[in-house]
Amino acid sequence: MKIAVDAMGGDYAPEEVVLGAIEAVKSYSLDVVLVGDTNKIKEVLNRYGAKDNSHLSIVHASQVIDMGEHPAQAIRKKKDASIVVATQLVKDGACDAVVAPGSTGAAVTAALLGLGRIKGIERPCIATPIPSKKGITVLLDSGANANSKPKHLVEGAIMGSHYAKYILGVDKPTVGLLNIGEEASKGNELAQATYPLLEKLKTISFYGNVEGRDIPKGTVDVVVCDGFVGNVILKFGEGMAMFIIRLVKDTIKSSGFIAKLGALAVYPALRTLKKRLDFTEYGGAPLLGVDGSFIICHGSSKAKAIKNAIRVAGELAQQDVVGHIRKSIEEEEVEQYDSEN
Amino acid sequence: MKIAVDAMGGDYAPEEVVLGAIEAVKSYSLDVVLVGDTNKIKEVLNRYGAKDNSHLSIVHASQVIDMGEHPAQAIRKKKDASIVVATQLVKDGACDAVVAPGSTGAAVTAALLGLGRIKGIERPCIATPIPSKKGITVLLDSGANANSKPKHLVEGAIMGSHYAKYILGVDKPTVGLLNIGEEASKGNELAQATYPLLEKLKTISFYGNVEGRDIPKGTVDVVVCDGFVGNVILKFGEGMAMFIIRLVKDTIKSSGFIAKLGALAVYPALRTLKKRLDFTEYGGAPLLGVDGSFIICHGSSKAKAIKNAIRVAGELAQQDVVGHIRKSIEEEEVEQYDSEN
Repeated sequence: MKIAVDAMGGDYAPEEVVLGAIEAVKSYSLDVVLVGDTNKIKEVLNRYGAKDNSHLSIVHASQVIDMGEHPAQAIRKKKDASIVVATQLVKDGACDAVVAPGSTGAAVTAALLGLGRIKGIERPCIATPIPSKKGITVLLDSGANANSKPKHLVEGAIMGSHYAKYILGVDKPTVGLLNIGEEASKGNELAQATYPLLEKLKTISFYGNVEGRDIPKGTVDVVVCDGFVGNVILKFGEGMAMFIIRLVKDTIKSSGFIAKLGALAVYPALRTLKKRLDFTEYGGAPLLGVDGSFIICHGSSKAKAIKNAIRVAGELAQQDVVGHIRKSIEEEEVEQYDSEN
Repeated sequence: MKIAVDAMGGDYAPEEVVLGAIEAVKSYSLDVVLVGDTNKIKEVLNRYGAKDNSHLSIVHASQVIDMGEHPAQAIRKKKDASIVVATQLVKDGACDAVVAPGSTGAAVTAALLGLGRIKGIERPCIATPIPSKKGITVLLDSGANANSKPKHLVEGAIMGSHYAKYILGVDKPTVGLLNIGEEASKGNELAQATYPLLEKLKTISFYGNVEGRDIPKGTVDVVVCDGFVGNVILKFGEGMAMFIIRLVKDTIKSSGFIAKLGALAVYPALRTLKKRLDFTEYGGAPLLGVDGSFIICHGSSKAKAIKNAIRVAGELAQQDVVGHIRKSIEEEEVEQYDSEN
């Protein structure tokens, strides 16, 4: 497997991205093509003694999409942007998957324009693994589409199910529809219209409605919702986790001498916890539904997150998740769903 | 102030509700009217030596709304249900506010039918106080309306602002629109249509868009969103908080002898933390927009939550939050907003 990595993407590019790639090729049997400013990438490779590593190569790209730019416009204008070139490598068959740290909007646009969509899929969506009591719950769409229709949630249910099966190794993944009550009649218009469609699917195991609390509880393996709700939840969850860990520390600090002594012992445990709650530890979020393996990473990704994302990108390609999705979408005749309702 | 409490509502009624009322009249200068099965209420009062407390009285109601019943149908059918009778006491002027533990749906229906809406308000909504870095963020609507329109978010912004000002004591509360990006152009159709309306309001201080992470961060005092998103967030947040505290304990437990010693010291600190994260500690969630002071409590409320809810109900009435909302709604001419868009 050969993974194209946008070496110029994210807040810590190219340093942390290149470092993540170096660590990835050390740990996994795959090759990485670093896409971006050759000189800058070389400089980092040299610094870490990796300039002669045969598993690492460079493809030059002269432009970069900045975080502040309008994603769609920037992607259309900058034909030689690193993310565009990296995506093209997969389109051309030179690489098997893309890893894109940085602006989610730019990544989604680059993937849509560069790879196109799987036949029958109208809205690719972002699947984010969220830590739960039972391990991981996949939440999708977590931000690709702000105005989802029932058809898009059906697409998400099928795609998320394959992701859970082939990447997270869940044998028969269950899929829940995010709602504000358990009964089929509950919820907003979108949820009410989606429920009967999910019930009819033959290729997934539909659990029924789930509520917000079911995400950390791990009631189902996959939770589908529209991209607005998913994105809000994701960011709320990240914020809450950091807030609570801060509170734990502060509460311990302010509770007197004995607790402070205890804190010395507990801090290493808290660090472990923080890791478990760190969404980026899981290796980025795949953009499912585009015709190629594509992983989006947080703009704040450091080497470890990049390394994990490269691993997951390799698995996505290796397991042919795109192929499995294509087959289910055909079998379910999703193309015939009315996307207006 | 005289508070009508539905003594038969919630999982621990009447025991915990009556006990909460006993504690409330001990701590605050207000009277409580316990509404429900006279014999059962008396039995609890006797048991706690409160049968002669002059601040407590009973109004008999022969029926109860069960958690499993369809809220709207049950409220219409059971004219002598405790929640219906308690609401009527406020409508008649015999009491100043209602405290309703139990089914949210039943409470909302009882309030709408019994008290009606403030003139100009189309959709009353539930305001929930959420713990944040800076203290409390008010989230609304957190579950009264599944399909909100821009007009309803405008109503929410005004109502939430008054709640923050008069109940939480924030001098000039800022209001944020929950969205998936900071720019005014971001978001789904609802958020995009709501933004310019909030900008035009004269009686609130509109901050602009906020994201999920801004809720625990406390970026603004009030966050408005549609009831579907609000409810999902609320339940997700409760679940996450409990999950993380569990994780902290488990992580400590599994990290060896020294950490275990530390844990002994840290557990009291964790209990304090759990309290701070316990949403019910703040005294229930007011249903704003109905023409009367009305507090909804979690079905699992115990005495302390009921006591706090009674206090907040008294404050709502004392501060005439309903009157302030009425004035702003008139001033902003909210009635003229098109509720179809």
